[in-house]
Amino acid sequence: MNPAHNQLKNDRLLRALRREPVDATPVWLMRQAGRYLPEYRASRARAGSFLALAKTPELACEVTLQPLERFDLDAAIIFSDILTIPDAMGLELHFVDGEGPKFARPIKTVSDIDRLGVPDPETELRYVMDALRVTRSALGGRVPLIGFSGSPWTLACYMVEGGGSETFSLIKAMAWNEPAALHRLLAINTAAVIAYLSAQRAAGAQALMVFDTWGGILTPAQYTQFSLPYLERIAAELQRGDGPDRTPLILFGRGNQAHLEALAASGAEGIGVDWTCDLAEARSRTGGHVALQGNLDPGALFANPAALRAEVGRVLASFGEGPGHVFNLGHGIAQTVDPDNVGVLVDAVHALSRARTATASVSLG
Amino acid sequence: MNPAHNQLKNDRLLRALRREPVDATPVWLMRQAGRYLPEYRASRARAGSFLALAKTPELACEVTLQPLERFDLDAAIIFSDILTIPDAMGLELHFVDGEGPKFARPIKTVSDIDRLGVPDPETELRYVMDALRVTRSALGGRVPLIGFSGSPWTLACYMVEGGGSETFSLIKAMAWNEPAALHRLLAINTAAVIAYLSAQRAAGAQALMVFDTWGGILTPAQYTQFSLPYLERIAAELQRGDGPDRTPLILFGRGNQAHLEALAASGAEGIGVDWTCDLAEARSRTGGHVALQGNLDPGALFANPAALRAEVGRVLASFGEGPGHVFNLGHGIAQTVDPDNVGVLVDAVHALSRARTATASVSLG
Repeated sequence: MNPAHNQLKNDRLLRALRREPVDATPVWLMRQAGRYLPEYRASRARAGSFLALAKTPELACEVTLQPLERFDLDAAIIFSDILTIPDAMGLELHFVDGEGPKFARPIKTVSDIDRLGVPDPETELRYVMDALRVTRSALGGRVPLIGFSGSPWTLACYMVEGGGSETFSLIKAMAWNEPAALHRLLAINTAAVIAYLSAQRAAGAQALMVFDTWGGILTPAQYTQFSLPYLERIAAELQRGDGPDRTPLILFGRGNQAHLEALAASGAEGIGVDWTCDLAEARSRTGGHVALQGNLDPGALFANPAALRAEVGRVLASFGEGPGHVFNLGHGIAQTVDPDNVGVLVDAVHALSRARTATASVSLG
Repeated sequence: MNPAHNQLKNDRLLRALRREPVDATPVWLMRQAGRYLPEYRASRARAGSFLALAKTPELACEVTLQPLERFDLDAAIIFSDILTIPDAMGLELHFVDGEGPKFARPIKTVSDIDRLGVPDPETELRYVMDALRVTRSALGGRVPLIGFSGSPWTLACYMVEGGGSETFSLIKAMAWNEPAALHRLLAINTAAVIAYLSAQRAAGAQALMVFDTWGGILTPAQYTQFSLPYLERIAAELQRGDGPDRTPLILFGRGNQAHLEALAASGAEGIGVDWTCDLAEARSRTGGHVALQGNLDPGALFANPAALRAEVGRVLASFGEGPGHVFNLGHGIAQTVDPDNVGVLVDAVHALSRARTATASVSLG
């Protein structure tokens, strides 16, 4: 179903995720289409709301492409939200200014879980599939298009808390008091994520990513109960082709450092790490079995250009020589970032990684 | 200056921090005097505000003692705030409901840093010293009294951001763009923390703790530049006596897992860790050179009593046999916690650790 990757004009991302040599380290940025861009704010104002933007395929395509017009990015990521699945399950996602995502009908009882079904992506999440098709066509093979979802655990956090939380008291109470019910919820979410990512692949996504934003709030023991097994199930069961046309899967998690060995053994092609993790250590602990994605501190975008370039160089050096690095931030771009600094970052990744490769060749030659 | 510790009726905390055997694992809880207690809310309502409570020694003593009336805690921690030092420097601390601490006059320019002086604890922070004296006397040797401060880096975060932050863009910009100015700020903060903790010891504090709440927002490389060296300086330069009368120092940091070896080598007697760190691993990496304080997930206080007891047992087991464990949460108590569950926790720590000690003796004997 998935059109061949070899029609891509820029396949650095896919090569790096296959741990093949690249001429320069590929770079894209979490939340690269977002509020730090004035053209995004204009599109959003015209659409009326974040959700109208995300749910109208032509507008989602428009904002997905905006950062590519400004910056020499090596991938596009479809403009969407990590919480589309619970919205399609009937929890009714909305956004309150300054408070982030909210569900009108959160999970309050065990029987709420038993009423949940796995949404059919081509009907209940058709707007995402249409956005992928429109955007894939508009990209014309310029760079690969990334599709994504929240992780089963992270979806469950929002579904039970009804939104963001400081204490996560409701989901933690469920984890301790009703673990069987939570496992049922996580199993439903996992089936939904697999169906959703599979459909995104069929609709044109050339790489797939799972955001486990809240895995890091768990103790290591609870992570291995409530987050890791479901990420492993996704990596094992998501059919994504073979050989050079295999669609790579990236598992990103904030605070996932304690679990890098397990994540690397999951079968996912890439592991995304946040900026509190040293890439040299992450690479050594994952033994070269996966590509690593990350991990510039998003705060470095508040540095001046010289300091930002130096920090980009430090991140590249911490990964070291050899293939398998996708440059990214360790978390999404903050909305107060100066767009010019994003350009400095992207150009520095390419220039400094080319220079490193050249130096390595000279020293080897 | 510091009255002898051997007049204590319960010296489990100090014994554990010296890694001496104890009959039961000592337990106290960060934010044990706080809003989850109705009697605290009543005291605060009478005082009019958090700061009035903290700045009136008799009221600070009253709320410090409240949790000891309810629970079999092994330590009192003086009711105060981590941000008293910058307040005394003239930044004017205040609290906005629902938004946390704010400074009326944050650090905005490099020249603001050059105007800062080290407060004299017995004049500008006299209310803290008086609160310690009154409370130490009121405790009558029942349990030891802990004094504390924010860490130099954590103080700097609040001083530059003017309050809490999601992105820490101002302090991060300073770290990258004006590192020399930030180091001057951190040096002043360090001198102030040393003077402050030294005075707290003289006023009766029997253990001292530094809260590095925001060390974990730094990359490992920046932590070793901007947080660790100042914690090391405190541990090295703070005069705290020798032998059995030595006043132990505990360095707590959220997200400090990457730096446990360095922290253990600092000379501090105890290292506090959050709940995302496995105590067995922390103990192995710190090589038994320090006591460890922690690390129950504060979310476990939302579990039912049986699940809470099981989780207390898991934390005790993760530390394992032998001395050097101070039981605590990995972060402060949330204000929506049921006080009865705090009693369940405290009693479970004592009962389960006594049972473990008995089993170990039997299996050894």
